[in-house]
Amino acid sequence: MENAGGANGNQWGFKANEELKTASGITVRGVLNSLLENLNKNDTRPLIPLGHGDPSAFPSFRTASVAVDAIVHSVRSARFNCYSSTVGILPARRAIADYLNRDLPYKLSPDDVYLTLGCTQAIEVILTVLARPGANILLPRPGFPYYEARATHSHLEVRHFDLLPAKGWEVDLDAVEALADENTVALVIINPGNPCGNVYTYQHLQKIAETAKKLGIMVIADEVYDHLAFGNTPFVPMGVFGSIVPVLTLGSISKRWIVPGWRLGWLVTSDPNGILQDSGIVDSIKSFLNISSDPATFIQGAVPQILEKTEEEFFSKITDILRETADICYDRLKEIPCITCPKKPEGSMFVMVKLNYSLLEGINSDMEFALKLAKEESVIVLPGKIHKIYQVLKRFLLPNPLILEITGITVGLKDWLRITFAVEPSALEDGLGRMKAFYDRHAKKQ
Amino acid sequence: MENAGGANGNQWGFKANEELKTASGITVRGVLNSLLENLNKNDTRPLIPLGHGDPSAFPSFRTASVAVDAIVHSVRSARFNCYSSTVGILPARRAIADYLNRDLPYKLSPDDVYLTLGCTQAIEVILTVLARPGANILLPRPGFPYYEARATHSHLEVRHFDLLPAKGWEVDLDAVEALADENTVALVIINPGNPCGNVYTYQHLQKIAETAKKLGIMVIADEVYDHLAFGNTPFVPMGVFGSIVPVLTLGSISKRWIVPGWRLGWLVTSDPNGILQDSGIVDSIKSFLNISSDPATFIQGAVPQILEKTEEEFFSKITDILRETADICYDRLKEIPCITCPKKPEGSMFVMVKLNYSLLEGINSDMEFALKLAKEESVIVLPGKIHKIYQVLKRFLLPNPLILEITGITVGLKDWLRITFAVEPSALEDGLGRMKAFYDRHAKKQ
Repeated sequence: MENAGGANGNQWGFKANEELKTASGITVRGVLNSLLENLNKNDTRPLIPLGHGDPSAFPSFRTASVAVDAIVHSVRSARFNCYSSTVGILPARRAIADYLNRDLPYKLSPDDVYLTLGCTQAIEVILTVLARPGANILLPRPGFPYYEARATHSHLEVRHFDLLPAKGWEVDLDAVEALADENTVALVIINPGNPCGNVYTYQHLQKIAETAKKLGIMVIADEVYDHLAFGNTPFVPMGVFGSIVPVLTLGSISKRWIVPGWRLGWLVTSDPNGILQDSGIVDSIKSFLNISSDPATFIQGAVPQILEKTEEEFFSKITDILRETADICYDRLKEIPCITCPKKPEGSMFVMVKLNYSLLEGINSDMEFALKLAKEESVIVLPGKIHKIYQVLKRFLLPNPLILEITGITVGLKDWLRITFAVEPSALEDGLGRMKAFYDRHAKKQ
Repeated sequence: MENAGGANGNQWGFKANEELKTASGITVRGVLNSLLENLNKNDTRPLIPLGHGDPSAFPSFRTASVAVDAIVHSVRSARFNCYSSTVGILPARRAIADYLNRDLPYKLSPDDVYLTLGCTQAIEVILTVLARPGANILLPRPGFPYYEARATHSHLEVRHFDLLPAKGWEVDLDAVEALADENTVALVIINPGNPCGNVYTYQHLQKIAETAKKLGIMVIADEVYDHLAFGNTPFVPMGVFGSIVPVLTLGSISKRWIVPGWRLGWLVTSDPNGILQDSGIVDSIKSFLNISSDPATFIQGAVPQILEKTEEEFFSKITDILRETADICYDRLKEIPCITCPKKPEGSMFVMVKLNYSLLEGINSDMEFALKLAKEESVIVLPGKIHKIYQVLKRFLLPNPLILEITGITVGLKDWLRITFAVEPSALEDGLGRMKAFYDRHAKKQ
């Protein structure tokens, strides 16, 4: 349509904030959506999405009926159509404190709990609170790039420490010590691990706590995959070490209940010594929540029922299926020579695998591998170095406005792929079979 | 508990972002909550909340059963447990475009619609997008202080123009012209009006559009109270003038459906000439939504049913009750000599009234009036100049941590009160009767 209103380049005095593009350009959800929507028009086979940690559409991963009933009961009660208090309604905060207290050596109170829009908003809140001129934060590599996006948006400097594949993706604590200085405010860990599928031992978590204490920094423990541990290492919440170091625990019902779209998470101060209170962090959290949006009140109203009434049977069904699909994934990947998996996944929904290009003909980057695999086999995996995905896709693939819809997923390791095994087992077998066929077709001739 | 972890003042290297307090200290929701929870221990009468625009707890304002059924159907379908796309799911965006198109001379497409967490997040999105160094925005006085809070947080300069009580709270367009300069990006109007209860005529909205066009600025039209018009002036959406000036329309189901806790709103570019697209505003909105939280997906999934199936009978029931309570409010306030109401409310849920201290003994500010009224009569009204409420309450009233939970409500006029009439009619009669008794007790002896 013509600019009939008399508009021209100079007439209008507004312009957008350019910094937003930098912040949102390093993340990914919408890219996967774009791939899903655009890549497979001539392929009649079903698309196999191994790039995204959202199995809610698969029958084997359907949420607990008690959780759905809790929502229905809450919205039908008409008691929760009102605005929420800014920190969340008390019954929900109490239920979350009780839920976390089952695994802690001290007792959280409801006042230690803040309700958030999934774990995502918990990340936004704490990074905004910690951002002040000159401050820096230590993030894991590989990790979850929403941290990088939010830190960038808040002008909080990011420093990366490595997770060590040879040590089961443990934190490189020497690197942490070398990176930290007097302006370092926190260390982030994600346990169970996204994107590595590892679960940290009690002993390693204790070492992390002691290192953070020595450095005078808090630990932000992203436990959005809490209790999704199905190997030999049990899940231990970082809050167990709250007496050594102040811990901010981030969690959600998104993953354990397979309802990421319900947007119900929490930020918890696991800090029996009250250091976060004394340092003003707690007041700042409350201040920021005053100008932030809240989870829908009737979803908050359902939280006590969801946390208290979900049966162990549902949880074990989910961990059983994840154990089964992790096994399938690990075993089938071993049949693909160009892929190495340094550690069998024990938790979360992901595994990181390394590519060996010397066994491939005409494929020289993780991005190229992922793009060709998507085009030829309708299988989506996430390249390890995603921050260039936007430009690459724009150049190679699609003149599609949806491509601008880039949000949080993972990573940060060149020449690696992140693969999710949280899909229906039959679909996983199919997808990994196609990856094998893809390898066979592209293998370098000896 | 003692700091047994060995913490002391110097050991910990983190500190909170101090700016957050400035941003959140100028708003109010939690203060009202604190008053509600603390002020009336010795008063056996029910508390009458005339300070808050949330009538969802009253039987007369119960939401439409079709809306509740739509939520139940959506969550039971198991189709919407997944993550949403960052702009909102297509069926919901399409339904909102169709809903708004009923009143527009051109057609919005679903791509013009972005789903937000209530109208609140729509305000956050647009103010963040417009914030760049040196920019300023024109806000109404009286208004809704969440705009001030978010602008402060984003370092966007605020300039206030007056709404004119003698002209039915019309915008002082001469003041707008005098305030605007080359760094002005937008003008905000709230229609139907919060806190004034006015509804702008077609002619006045057209003048606003022409003034904004002349100044080269966009109009942000906060229509969260859309269609809640029950007087002689019909509600006209600002988007009707989108061909004159680019309009960003903010809306929600919160008020018309009386479900503020459902957190479902929208930001819409009402801009048939594509000026917001050309200027980069649209891309910036998408970028910011990439790093923002989304409304719960199953609530989005219910939007088509809610918007299409709610019967006219429900809407007219709500406007009928608002007309009735507005009449009660206006008539009963006339019986209280120290209160003047410059204009009978025709829309929204509020009215602004002026205090005359010369008729009162020992009451010399709006704050004092509201505090004494709350203590003596268990009636809550909102003082016009709320940005000092935090300090005042802290000093006078309550050593209560809840008082820190301050969020968005209204105003900005010294010596005025905001009163909501959106309460059960019997409660309104009771509350206004108590205000009359309060006046009789505090009236200056002649």
